[in-house]
Amino acid sequence: MKSVLLSRRDLDFLLYEWLQVEELTKRDRFAEHSKETFDGVLDLCEQLAERYFAPHNKKSDANEPTFDGQRVTLIPEVKQAWDAFAAADLLAMGMDAEVGGAQLPATVAQAAFAWISAANLATSGYLMLTVANANLLAEFGTAEQIETFVKPMLAGRFSGTMALSETQAGSSLADITMRAEPQPDGSYRLFGSKMWISGAEHEMTDNIVNLVLAKIPGGPPGTKGISLFIVPKFLVGDDGAIGERNDVVLAGLNHKMGQRGITNTVLNFGDGTHRPGGADGAIGYLVGEPHRGITYMFRMMNEARLGVGMGAVALGYTGYLKSVQYARERPQGRPVTAKDPSTPQVPIIEHADVKRMLLAQKAYAEGALALALYCARLVDVSHSAESDGERDAAALLLDILTPVAKSWPSQWCLEANSLAIQVHGGYGYTREYDVEQHYRDNRLNPIHEGTHGIQSLDLLGRKVTQRGGASLAALGEAIAGTVAAADSIRGEAAELAAALNGMWRRLVEVTSGMFASGDVEAAMANSVVYLEAFGHLVIAWMWLEQFVAAHSECGEFYDGKRQAARYFFRYELPRIAPQLDLLESLDRTTLEMSPDWF
Amino acid sequence: MKSVLLSRRDLDFLLYEWLQVEELTKRDRFAEHSKETFDGVLDLCEQLAERYFAPHNKKSDANEPTFDGQRVTLIPEVKQAWDAFAAADLLAMGMDAEVGGAQLPATVAQAAFAWISAANLATSGYLMLTVANANLLAEFGTAEQIETFVKPMLAGRFSGTMALSETQAGSSLADITMRAEPQPDGSYRLFGSKMWISGAEHEMTDNIVNLVLAKIPGGPPGTKGISLFIVPKFLVGDDGAIGERNDVVLAGLNHKMGQRGITNTVLNFGDGTHRPGGADGAIGYLVGEPHRGITYMFRMMNEARLGVGMGAVALGYTGYLKSVQYARERPQGRPVTAKDPSTPQVPIIEHADVKRMLLAQKAYAEGALALALYCARLVDVSHSAESDGERDAAALLLDILTPVAKSWPSQWCLEANSLAIQVHGGYGYTREYDVEQHYRDNRLNPIHEGTHGIQSLDLLGRKVTQRGGASLAALGEAIAGTVAAADSIRGEAAELAAALNGMWRRLVEVTSGMFASGDVEAAMANSVVYLEAFGHLVIAWMWLEQFVAAHSECGEFYDGKRQAARYFFRYELPRIAPQLDLLESLDRTTLEMSPDWF
Repeated sequence: MKSVLLSRRDLDFLLYEWLQVEELTKRDRFAEHSKETFDGVLDLCEQLAERYFAPHNKKSDANEPTFDGQRVTLIPEVKQAWDAFAAADLLAMGMDAEVGGAQLPATVAQAAFAWISAANLATSGYLMLTVANANLLAEFGTAEQIETFVKPMLAGRFSGTMALSETQAGSSLADITMRAEPQPDGSYRLFGSKMWISGAEHEMTDNIVNLVLAKIPGGPPGTKGISLFIVPKFLVGDDGAIGERNDVVLAGLNHKMGQRGITNTVLNFGDGTHRPGGADGAIGYLVGEPHRGITYMFRMMNEARLGVGMGAVALGYTGYLKSVQYARERPQGRPVTAKDPSTPQVPIIEHADVKRMLLAQKAYAEGALALALYCARLVDVSHSAESDGERDAAALLLDILTPVAKSWPSQWCLEANSLAIQVHGGYGYTREYDVEQHYRDNRLNPIHEGTHGIQSLDLLGRKVTQRGGASLAALGEAIAGTVAAADSIRGEAAELAAALNGMWRRLVEVTSGMFASGDVEAAMANSVVYLEAFGHLVIAWMWLEQFVAAHSECGEFYDGKRQAARYFFRYELPRIAPQLDLLESLDRTTLEMSPDWF
Repeated sequence: MKSVLLSRRDLDFLLYEWLQVEELTKRDRFAEHSKETFDGVLDLCEQLAERYFAPHNKKSDANEPTFDGQRVTLIPEVKQAWDAFAAADLLAMGMDAEVGGAQLPATVAQAAFAWISAANLATSGYLMLTVANANLLAEFGTAEQIETFVKPMLAGRFSGTMALSETQAGSSLADITMRAEPQPDGSYRLFGSKMWISGAEHEMTDNIVNLVLAKIPGGPPGTKGISLFIVPKFLVGDDGAIGERNDVVLAGLNHKMGQRGITNTVLNFGDGTHRPGGADGAIGYLVGEPHRGITYMFRMMNEARLGVGMGAVALGYTGYLKSVQYARERPQGRPVTAKDPSTPQVPIIEHADVKRMLLAQKAYAEGALALALYCARLVDVSHSAESDGERDAAALLLDILTPVAKSWPSQWCLEANSLAIQVHGGYGYTREYDVEQHYRDNRLNPIHEGTHGIQSLDLLGRKVTQRGGASLAALGEAIAGTVAAADSIRGEAAELAAALNGMWRRLVEVTSGMFASGDVEAAMANSVVYLEAFGHLVIAWMWLEQFVAAHSECGEFYDGKRQAARYFFRYELPRIAPQLDLLESLDRTTLEMSPDWF
């Protein structure tokens, strides 16, 4: 029986037929790998997802972590799943050999991990955060920090968090007030509190490695005065043994609409609950240089943003497959042109509107998965490039695609989950079926790791203009390459290419006009509209890429790919036109709205 | 302090300044009323909402009804709220004087009831269903049925349900199998089971009056063989005393994502648990004539559809007000053009993108409220008309607007709730704030009382073409009237009118083309796209109506109305253009998608 978590057939298409990941094994970094090792990891993650992660997805939603004032309790299945993943050495699958990693391409690692996220996004969050934390420290930490913290994380003995936000400073990191006082021994003592920290405070692992942003007194104001610290829950001895309790304590758990299985916490640092070493303050270890914390954290944040996007994709995808399965099995109603009530009812998948809702989900989920894997491949190219030029080109493109790869799936795979509910009718609204939970779980994704608004400012205020527009130009070249490939096929591919190319040229023209106006305030006022139009265009490109890769193949799978591409070009891409018109007009409706008029 | 449930200022504007409800008091039916009685009911419902309904909204979500195999338990606050509403004689506020009603205009009654729905949609559902049930029986029941069932419902001693769906027949009523066997005494015995019955099986009231669709053996197939029955939980003696338990029993409760406070049930009829009168079967009493059940039920269903739409509006509206309040109070970040981190943070309501999200909510919620009240006024006109022509004109317009008044708020006020979460950031995703519950509660509205798909078939397959297009023509005339009024004002009003008129003409042209094609299958395939385009156009019309009503007024309230109208015309109305292009092309993408390609 086919899995309803993800489609291995689609992953094989995307990885091998489209992205040609086997080509990566010709590069030094991935030379130890082969299609066999790739398939092995994909198989393994699918098995772990089915066996350890999917079965407790509902249970961990209905039984969220509890705090009795002393300790936090998770249902035991969370640790069993964590242990199974760690025991399979998968935490380090994408990391460098020198820290014990398998140096698997990110493209394959992300595809494999998507099984885990589709099965249980909340539990997968503990893993995702730990891997991102380890990646950051592997890059910027000292050898000792790697030995003490990274290796136990990769072994699954420690887990990791990222502690950025504070109650008064959510999206505005410049305003954090967490203080880090330097100590004579080179360590720091931290005081303050953090909000929205996922994966913190539980007893699943021996220790928790919190990466914490804080300000060293006397530093510059704003984000330029922020430094990054390791603040473990327990101090670690030179021999690696767990030592004294550090003064980082749980102030409370947040209770969320979805993703309930992963703790989300308010953490107090240095409030005097514990006095490690007999003194006040949570002990922290500086990562890298002082005042460069934001730069380091962005390493982790960019990875987390791609991870959030992939999580949204995974939920969109599994909701899609579940609603296809439901639509095949559920008889209801008759064709529009054959209403005789004495004839048997037909499966609802026969109805045009149900097919519309399934096609939309397919177009959103598969289009977004393609983008997520495309971005992962750019990560691989930048990590394995043989020239600075190649590395730079990949990084430029990845830079401009990251806000899209985070925000677009968060918006449209959530919409896919809403359509999955709708296909199920009343059943979809009940907790007996899976899709309502996917919808609730997915609703977090447009918020965390930078809201839609923040992604839009990143795209329009930074990425589009950076280095004289080099990122935008890199994207233009990539799209032009696809258009050329489609043109050479002629026929329908060329028609789709013409539609994409026309819309791209219009987007570039509108973008230029916005900046040429000199009216920064008006140009930025509709940044979210820009992000949405830009995102739909990027996904149309991903569909043209898939159409081209599938164009000469026969069979139902390829028929489905081609039809989903048509759907996207006919139903979705045209949405951009009025958005671009609005952007071109430098509309000031929101700017002119007085707060007193609400 | 201003309420965050609804805006009385806006209700006053819509009722008195725009819809001129005082004019209704010139009609016989409403002659006993005045602005004072209207205001009294609005005040009273606001007070009851704040005092009895809002306080247990979260509690009833967290403590949904439980069934121990014998009885269903609700939290006591639900009954307290029910009793308070009933004690205020509000259940009969809109009903005829001859059944004990106050003959309040529906326009006012709906506006007043919106306070209750905004405070607690789940608890308000018991009331809404009971009123709709009583309205149906008052129209089609016998004098004895009215005496026995309607009067106790209006007194709050009995409550009512509508029992249509069955497990195998959700949207397809033709396929119900509930059987009603005629008895020598003129009553019936019912056998079968019903699914998704809200408000059934609780002990809040002395009795529950279920209105049940069933088939009398030997009748015609499909919907033409369906009859309507009263099947009370307890039989009622001639003296009105509660008698023997009828054989309608709870098979189980459904557990929903939202609207958890109201029971949603599977009911078995005649399964032998009880044997009223010593025989098998649930005792039922035919309403009206045999085989005309669907016609009668549509009376209730149309009312319920308008009620669902208003419920969606109420949630959208309260989410909007709560996010405005949050945005005023929450400092975060700085203006785009003033990033100095040493300056204080500003309230987020100062940010253009937050204003965009608030304006969108305002445009959705106030636009949808306007439509809901406009429809209620059509109900009033049709009930109080002095000529058949006037009654007919109002009914024609109401017919074509009903699917929009149900579906548009269900879609866009849900989107408003999503934006309310987004304005709150991470806080909005937690259960400490209200908006995540509104989002969950509202997600039911595109499903029950006819899904979006069903509404779209009703609109495009029935209402648009009925009586030679008379309903569509009636809408065209109404829009033309608004356009003419706006034209006479000139200036900006005339510009908005031109945009609306152009889009309306395009819609009519596309509609004609779809039917002229003769390709019914293709024309109906995108009925939901049609419904969405049609709905946006109707709401744009509602905004032009409000713009005209506000155009010469000064003050922040009117400034806000005008700006929301501009928002709708600039950001929302243009969405229709690509939808109409798609419809005009008679696109066959979904029809040509084979189920095997998913």
